This record gives sequence, structure tokens and C-alpha cells, in this order.
Amino acid sequence: MPFYIGLLHYPVYNRSGEVIVSAITNLDLHDLARLARTYGAERFYVINPLVDQQDLVKKIRGHWVGGHGATYNKHRSEAMSLLSVVSTLEEAIAEIGEKEGSVPILIATDARSDRGETVPYPFVREIMTSRRAAIILFGTAWGMAEELIRDADYLLEPIIGVSEYNHLSVRTAAAITLDRLFSQN
Amino acid sequence: MPFYIGLLHYPVYNRSGEVIVSAITNLDLHDLARLARTYGAERFYVINPLVDQQDLVKKIRGHWVGGHGATYNKHRSEAMSLLSVVSTLEEAIAEIGEKEGSVPILIATDARSDRGETVPYPFVREIMTSRRAAIILFGTAWGMAEELIRDADYLLEPIIGVSEYNHLSVRTAAAITLDRLFSQN
Repeated sequence: MPFYIGLLHYPVYNRSGEVIVSAITNLDLHDLARLARTYGAERFYVINPLVDQQDLVKKIRGHWVGGHGATYNKHRSEAMSLLSVVSTLEEAIAEIGEKEGSVPILIATDARSDRGETVPYPFVREIMTSRRAAIILFGTAWGMAEELIRDADYLLEPIIGVSEYNHLSVRTAAAITLDRLFSQN
Repeated sequence: MPFYIGLLHYPVYNRSGEVIVSAITNLDLHDLARLARTYGAERFYVINPLVDQQDLVKKIRGHWVGGHGATYNKHRSEAMSLLSVVSTLEEAIAEIGEKEGSVPILIATDARSDRGETVPYPFVREIMTSRRAAIILFGTAWGMAEELIRDADYLLEPIIGVSEYNHLSVRTAAAITLDRLFSQN
């Protein structure tokens, strides 16, 4: 099935549990675009409602897709061309719906285990064999807001290594998630 | 078995295939320290022969382990305390040998498939059940120098997603490697 990934900058929590808009991190864009290309995502949505932040993302994308970066590194250009900036998750969902003919299955991710009922990785791998499109959402800062997780169709179980410690960056968490869901190993 | 990870900044290739010393990337330190803590590594060696680069790493580590960062984010402090700076791989190996009583098994990683005979992930997972310590090496820039791969005991197979494209960042590649080797999922 076709799948999409989304990197959410709003609504997310700060360390005090307040809902904020988080700032764009350049390396997140690169790392997730490269992951999207590696694991076959249709598109990588960067979701941020602030126009100056959107402009920053468009400038970075432009450099690598159409500017000097494209001739400097064609692999990076290929990855960055999957990146698309939208203001809201709804906008991404509408765009996917238009392209795929139905709204995508919404799969949320979170590092905490007390954010709602979760589903295991093999379950989502199974869902991914169906024909309906899906979008897998990654939150920045201290994770995506509760209402978003409630609205999702599924919440993936947190990534646990060998202990209770699970404080990974969104870049590395997304890498592990996509590898567990889509690797053909 | 106890295992260690190493992030190599020399000898590595630049895009023209010349051997260089690469520069420290702040987010690599954070991401790999958090991965080391998540997957139970004994220590995370940052390998760089340049004293100014070593000083930079020590300054960053100091901020998170003993400075303001330690009170700001104790999870980060816990991860960053695993970080250790050394000039050469030999230095890391000697230190591990002293602690563990024998030299560690040296496992190299590389994105390219033409760098030597590789072993699959399940094979290395199996090795990891033995009692001897191991160090898993990740190269920065365009990958670690050939002689280093030749000197390693094993070279892990490259990470392949769903196509021939495998141009991940060292951060996300390390995440996937450690999850494939040590996840209890």
C-alpha cells in the first residue's frame, strides 16, 4: 500500500506540557527525507503553521532540489524532492485523499506508554499490506498533542530498547519505526 | 555480551574518495549517546584525532553531564555520560581490552555493498550472545577507510530499505543497526 510520513510541529508539547509550535530542525528534514526515499514513502509532509518556518523549509528544499545542492548531491536531491510543506495535518490528509481516492489510515507514534492504547509493530505491518493509504505521524519537541493521538486510527507502541529508557530523537525513532514496518529483511 | 559503539571521524573518505578527518556534528553526539543508552552499550566512543575537535566534544559533554544541561534534562545527562573522546580506534580498543580482559570483536558498518565480504544481521546477533566484548563502528562523511574495514573482524551488510537507494545519515543508520542487533521485539 502507498504510505506517507508526516513530521508534526504543531500541536506538540513543550517540556512543561504546554501546546506549542516547534521550530524546524534542518537535520530532521534531511534525515526524514532520506528515510522516506529509502523505505518507499510517497511523500514526506513537514507540518508547521508558521509562514516564516514554512519559508525556511521551502528555501532548504529549493537548494537541494533545484539549486546548487541538486548538482552537488543528486541522492540528496532525490530524497528532498519527496518533501512537501503544509500548514496542518488536515491539509496533508486532504491532499492524500485527493490523490489516493480515500482518506488515509492515520497512525500516530509516541515515546510514552501512557498516551492511550497502542498496537504492536507486526499489527501495523499487516495493515500496511491492505490497499488503503496510510500516513505515519512523528511528533517533534515533547511529542504530539493528546487530541491528535485520540483522532488517530492507531497509536504505535513506543520503541523500547533493553531498558525503560526511551528518549530517542525523532530522527532515530523514525528510522527505527520505518525499518520495523517496511524493511524486507 | 558487553558491547561498545564508535563514531569514527578519521580515517574516513570525503566525496572525492580522499582520506580526511571529518568535523564533529553536535546532533550525532546526542543521537548516538541516546541510542547507546537505549540499547545498552557500555560506552560510546567519539574517535577524532584533532585536539580542537576533541575539546569541542568535551565541552558539549561537560554541559550535559556536569553543567546546566544536567539539571535541565537528566535523561540527556544519563545518555551523554556514556560518551568518551579518544584520538584513535586503537585507543578505544586498548581501553576496552583493559576493562574486559581481551580485545573486542571489531564490527564495521558501511552503506556500500562493494567494500568487502559482509555478514547478515542475524549472524552478528548470534555473535552478540557470546561472552567476548564487541565494538560496532560507524563512519562519518563518505564512510570509513578501506584498511579499517580490512582490519575489522566482520563487516555488516548495508541497510537496504525497499530499493537500491541507501543514503542514510550516520544517525539513522546507527539507529537501525542497533535496533536490528539488540531490540528484544
